[in-house]
Amino acid sequence: MSKGVTPQKQNYAAWYTDVVAKSDLADNGPVRGTMIVKPYGFALWDNIQKALDNMLKATNHENAYFPMLIPKSFLAQEAAHIEGFAKECAVVTHTRLKALDDKSIIVDPDSKLEEEVIIRPTSETIVWSMYKKWIQSYRDLPLLINQWVNIVRWEMRTRLFLRTTEFLWQEGHTAHATAEEAENEALLILDIYRQLAEDYLAIPVLTGIKSESEKFAGADQTYCIEAMMGDKRALQSGTTHYLGTNFAKAFDVKFQTKDNREQFVYATSWGVSTRLVGAVIMVHGDDQGLKLPPKIAPVQVILIPIARNDDQKTAVKSHITSTLAELRKAGVRIKEDWRDESPGFKFHDWEMKGVPLRMEVGLRDIEKDEVVLVRRDTGAKIAMKVKDIVTQIPQLLATIQANMFQQAKAFLEKNTTKVDTYDQFKETLKNNGGFIKCGWDGKAESEKAIKEETKATIRCIPFDENHKGKKCVYSGKPAKYEVIFAKSY
Amino acid sequence: MSKGVTPQKQNYAAWYTDVVAKSDLADNGPVRGTMIVKPYGFALWDNIQKALDNMLKATNHENAYFPMLIPKSFLAQEAAHIEGFAKECAVVTHTRLKALDDKSIIVDPDSKLEEEVIIRPTSETIVWSMYKKWIQSYRDLPLLINQWVNIVRWEMRTRLFLRTTEFLWQEGHTAHATAEEAENEALLILDIYRQLAEDYLAIPVLTGIKSESEKFAGADQTYCIEAMMGDKRALQSGTTHYLGTNFAKAFDVKFQTKDNREQFVYATSWGVSTRLVGAVIMVHGDDQGLKLPPKIAPVQVILIPIARNDDQKTAVKSHITSTLAELRKAGVRIKEDWRDESPGFKFHDWEMKGVPLRMEVGLRDIEKDEVVLVRRDTGAKIAMKVKDIVTQIPQLLATIQANMFQQAKAFLEKNTTKVDTYDQFKETLKNNGGFIKCGWDGKAESEKAIKEETKATIRCIPFDENHKGKKCVYSGKPAKYEVIFAKSY
Repeated sequence: MSKGVTPQKQNYAAWYTDVVAKSDLADNGPVRGTMIVKPYGFALWDNIQKALDNMLKATNHENAYFPMLIPKSFLAQEAAHIEGFAKECAVVTHTRLKALDDKSIIVDPDSKLEEEVIIRPTSETIVWSMYKKWIQSYRDLPLLINQWVNIVRWEMRTRLFLRTTEFLWQEGHTAHATAEEAENEALLILDIYRQLAEDYLAIPVLTGIKSESEKFAGADQTYCIEAMMGDKRALQSGTTHYLGTNFAKAFDVKFQTKDNREQFVYATSWGVSTRLVGAVIMVHGDDQGLKLPPKIAPVQVILIPIARNDDQKTAVKSHITSTLAELRKAGVRIKEDWRDESPGFKFHDWEMKGVPLRMEVGLRDIEKDEVVLVRRDTGAKIAMKVKDIVTQIPQLLATIQANMFQQAKAFLEKNTTKVDTYDQFKETLKNNGGFIKCGWDGKAESEKAIKEETKATIRCIPFDENHKGKKCVYSGKPAKYEVIFAKSY
Repeated sequence: MSKGVTPQKQNYAAWYTDVVAKSDLADNGPVRGTMIVKPYGFALWDNIQKALDNMLKATNHENAYFPMLIPKSFLAQEAAHIEGFAKECAVVTHTRLKALDDKSIIVDPDSKLEEEVIIRPTSETIVWSMYKKWIQSYRDLPLLINQWVNIVRWEMRTRLFLRTTEFLWQEGHTAHATAEEAENEALLILDIYRQLAEDYLAIPVLTGIKSESEKFAGADQTYCIEAMMGDKRALQSGTTHYLGTNFAKAFDVKFQTKDNREQFVYATSWGVSTRLVGAVIMVHGDDQGLKLPPKIAPVQVILIPIARNDDQKTAVKSHITSTLAELRKAGVRIKEDWRDESPGFKFHDWEMKGVPLRMEVGLRDIEKDEVVLVRRDTGAKIAMKVKDIVTQIPQLLATIQANMFQQAKAFLEKNTTKVDTYDQFKETLKNNGGFIKCGWDGKAESEKAIKEETKATIRCIPFDENHKGKKCVYSGKPAKYEVIFAKSY
């Protein structure tokens, strides 16, 4: 493995690709746009998954599994859904291969399906086709179901983690007796997504509402968390949808109320995906590689012995082994690198992989009954007495976690600019980029004109927006909302 | 939900279908042969998954994710593989839908793929196409990778959990420098599967080797765990394969040895699937429904208040709440059923769902400072002082777990018959069924003749077989192995 990556300033996209490859997170699959999540990348995703899964279970959501294969006719049932969204999908038409005499393999024409089958691009249709069967009475509500699955969307331009033909995600699909309860659910999950981003991924996010043109096809309202990447572009990092009765009507799902009326069921859906790994790379990474927040890092502490021979290795081992065992018992994820490589090589390797804390132990450290710790977030070196390790390293990891969040937050704030005029808007976008906060008249025409001229889109209408007295940056008319514009992934 | 299921003796297949539906484990999907794993069924699968995942991680296996979409050409690379195995698979030929003016949806003919893509029926080919890139030197070995994924095989006759078009499983794919190391890996995993079955699912299994005709296409040797269902038929519950260098040769994967030679890589693969849930249902279930081993039961203890009104409910709650909290802290999975239904209704409902222990609390129990416990495995009623609950319930759950295993083991042993002649063989199969232990000459012709006449197949050549002095039950020639024949799922 060669050591360097393309510097961010030289070519941010190349930097990203280099980091994904050299930190061993993922690789490209043989079918265009597909991705192999390698063990290190999967361990990272697994930690993200566990954190979210725990929060979902604590709020009474249950996991289930719906089939990946959906009859084509289902996608026609919710018109807005197919029109705006579900077109680029993988279509299964045959069910058998056949070996010819020359050993070549062909698709058996006799195995053609009567009705083609779609690989899920999302599961609202199949879920609601089942909810029709499962929901009869108010006693069956709410239904709070989540699934962790793979999804296929036939994307044209793909990039590992950010946009791939097949990706992993969770999708929640809930059913409720009232509109209010469903809206509260969409907001509850949005807040859980915010906590996941901020408290685990150390990524500050804006929370708010999508404009009509950016919302999910089939939803009455889409809420989102938006993050700022290291190149100041926005990444939509999670969305929750209040679906009203759109899917209930499409699949005729009614329930009997307490007072014996028949009523359509209200719905939400929501998801985050392996795209979050892309966000972690881009928010925290630098020219040395990944920088992982301790809470989700597969390895939190990497031990690198500074030893020239087997005797020295043995000395390091006997100096530190019992302490590391105690630290592991306290829940710290530690790896030891005893490979026959130079310390310098190992330093670079684990920096690239973004391990939050490096522990160096050599003969001099043993004499002083110390270890040397190096923080990945700041590069700071700390000498620590062995007796203090078990109590102080967990604290230090918490400090790193908090510092990474603060750094990212400062970056987000520094690169969020309030503007009043369209000239300021364009100048800011050109000279600095980042998030632009401004008034918007709420008209699709203004939004579209800005997008066509500048490629910036409305990322969200923040919950804490204040449009009082403001004017639309494009039309000059009174602002209906204060919004965030940005170029995005 | 109606209460009864078809009795096992009347119609075992109908009993199975009824139990799956009425215990709320799973439902049929809209595409033929697909399955929805409902929340209760998924929680059961999740517990099985966690138990196995922990054992795999403890033996240095790592999780990853390989793409579901495989180029058709890959399947042609290992000839035995496609010929014997991978023919019935879902073929993706197009990548876009199109809405017509009349709102109907068609597959866009312009989106036809140049090369068709297959949904994985298993992942050896795509894994080894990547291993070619990842493995260069002995330093890259062993590679011990597992993935938890969905699989599609276009099966003709399907039954929930036992054989479905799409199912969930784990598949391990390991790469080794020597044949011996790879063979040991296949045996290590087989023993982990045995532990999973016996220690968690309370299912005794035979371990052994598959005959040539029953082994995985592409493997040099297939090992298996075989279990006996409640109708005495066999269920192959997990397999591990020693693949030799077959896939390494197909994908040209060589490595540089320590002494600088080039050598093909040795391989294993192995998997267990949601089929294990079917085994749990059939090994333990009875005419009252499911019977779940405590270690994997989503709910281990169900509290059912015996209360006629809200005052009585409040009394029960204040009597038991703090004790249940303590029990939860001790890791026991408890659910409380406060619904407005009769106790009798609830008893049936949770019996159907197989909860190992029912806790009844009524006014008389409160007076005596007791609860009444009812075991699902034996029906035994136990009065227990509240102060003893926290220490004694975990012990009781362990007792139930052990008893369920012993019951299943006694059943397996009782229904395993040693025979010497083909007449005895046929008579036993006809009158009792079960496992038949007998000599076999090792010839495919004998195996085939028996299968054609009786539908019984060789389930495995047990590791502890002893063919000394035995004769082949079919040909009368000296036995090469002592084997287990049975009718199977």
